[in-house]
Amino acid sequence: MIWTVIGAIAATLTMFSFVPQIFRSLRTRSVNDVSPVTLFQLSAGVLLWMIYGIARRDPIIFIANLVTLITLTTLIFLYFKYKSLKQGVCR
Amino acid sequence: MIWTVIGAIAATLTMFSFVPQIFRSLRTRSVNDVSPVTLFQLSAGVLLWMIYGIARRDPIIFIANLVTLITLTTLIFLYFKYKSLKQGVCR
Repeated sequence: MIWTVIGAIAATLTMFSFVPQIFRSLRTRSVNDVSPVTLFQLSAGVLLWMIYGIARRDPIIFIANLVTLITLTTLIFLYFKYKSLKQGVCR
Repeated sequence: MIWTVIGAIAATLTMFSFVPQIFRSLRTRSVNDVSPVTLFQLSAGVLLWMIYGIARRDPIIFIANLVTLITLTTLIFLYFKYKSLKQGVCR
């Protein structure tokens, strides 16, 4: 029971971890320092964790990675939207 | 067996996912667009996932999150090192 709680807190923290990055990118409209390789590599990994979660019949792993994948997809969209703007600290 | 392989690939992808971000930050010496909240929130979550991995006796979850935590700690160090430089695309 205590482990389920710890797993749930872990899942909540990690699955929403890219929300602050999304808000920062929306505010600054600048993504020059963000690595697109990191975003794509993490998305691929998270997708495989989802499959692993299904195999292990572990709903926490599955849901946590599903939400992470959604936020990462949002961030990848913002990356390509703002990348062309080439804006940053120099505005 | 197949699920162990999928879990291992998932773990490899995610645990090294911040390595490209580390190299990008080292190259540009600029971290203005990186969200520190994301880095700290993810680190806290990953630490709890490690504990969860121990509880579930799942070495893949434990090791994957241990390596992620090490890379995140490196990135947080670089963030505070380069943040004060205020450099970026305008050099």
